[in-house]
Amino acid sequence: MKLKERINNAIRNVPNFPKEGIDFKDITPIMLDSVLSNDMLDHLYETYKNQDIEAVAGIESRGFLFGYPLAMKLGVPFILIRKKGKLPYNKISYDYDLEYGSATIEIHIDALTKGQRVLIHDDLLATGGSAEATANLIKKCGAEIAGFNFLVSLDFLKGNEKLKSFSDNIVNLVSY
Amino acid sequence: MKLKERINNAIRNVPNFPKEGIDFKDITPIMLDSVLSNDMLDHLYETYKNQDIEAVAGIESRGFLFGYPLAMKLGVPFILIRKKGKLPYNKISYDYDLEYGSATIEIHIDALTKGQRVLIHDDLLATGGSAEATANLIKKCGAEIAGFNFLVSLDFLKGNEKLKSFSDNIVNLVSY
Repeated sequence: MKLKERINNAIRNVPNFPKEGIDFKDITPIMLDSVLSNDMLDHLYETYKNQDIEAVAGIESRGFLFGYPLAMKLGVPFILIRKKGKLPYNKISYDYDLEYGSATIEIHIDALTKGQRVLIHDDLLATGGSAEATANLIKKCGAEIAGFNFLVSLDFLKGNEKLKSFSDNIVNLVSY
Repeated sequence: MKLKERINNAIRNVPNFPKEGIDFKDITPIMLDSVLSNDMLDHLYETYKNQDIEAVAGIESRGFLFGYPLAMKLGVPFILIRKKGKLPYNKISYDYDLEYGSATIEIHIDALTKGQRVLIHDDLLATGGSAEATANLIKKCGAEIAGFNFLVSLDFLKGNEKLKSFSDNIVNLVSY
């Protein structure tokens, strides 16, 4: 069976989470299957090994799951992008609007160097709000966006429209 | 240089975080160093490869960082232990007391099977409250505690006293 199909089979649809009317894509069954997990990691490594990726940035907290193993395998730094107040050291922050209200994400001040080519990773691309904010935060640090990687994309929400201006290197393993 | 010494050198002391009087052990510089990260992962793999570990449970969210790569390398399921309301599917929960107030952790109802030998992993052992709660949650699922693993232990807080009744297999890479 193809990798895409195996991932599709593993992902669980949870209706009405986190709120009524939303079909949540639950990726935790992937983590229960170490053979699938390793095959996905190998696939991600093959995808990026020749792209001069100089760091992987993972978005809290499900973006830590594949982000860090991928960075380790590529032999590059892993950068934590966290919600306000979670990182302990000196930070650079970026504020952005949500559907209702606003949010702030942060990065450690010494996490990136100028011009460093960063791959942004998260488990899921929905409207693209947090990936866009992460890209803006990384640009604010003077680093470059080498691309975006997601395990799952909800294509009907057109998140990639928001991200194209940063990089057209947008890869996801499965789409809905 | 020995691994312990390299980890010690990488960990950053952040005074007065998250509150006045607390010296926070910041592990994010470890993630910036892929050589150190891979050496730590290899060391953890060597430690546990012959212990019949049947699952690794990582405590949100820094416990996801090494927990999932270790599970992948051992070829066993990775279980997410999350704060209340974060897991989408049917859950088993456990309530426990904090210094002020209380907290609830959750696990997916199908994450573990009866008698499965689970290694509990987190980045840091302080008073042991969340590791103890995780052990109680795992016992509630009918699974067994194969041991506890932490990157860092704050020995003066005597967290391991709390955990000994579940398993005396408590390993940490560095201690303060």
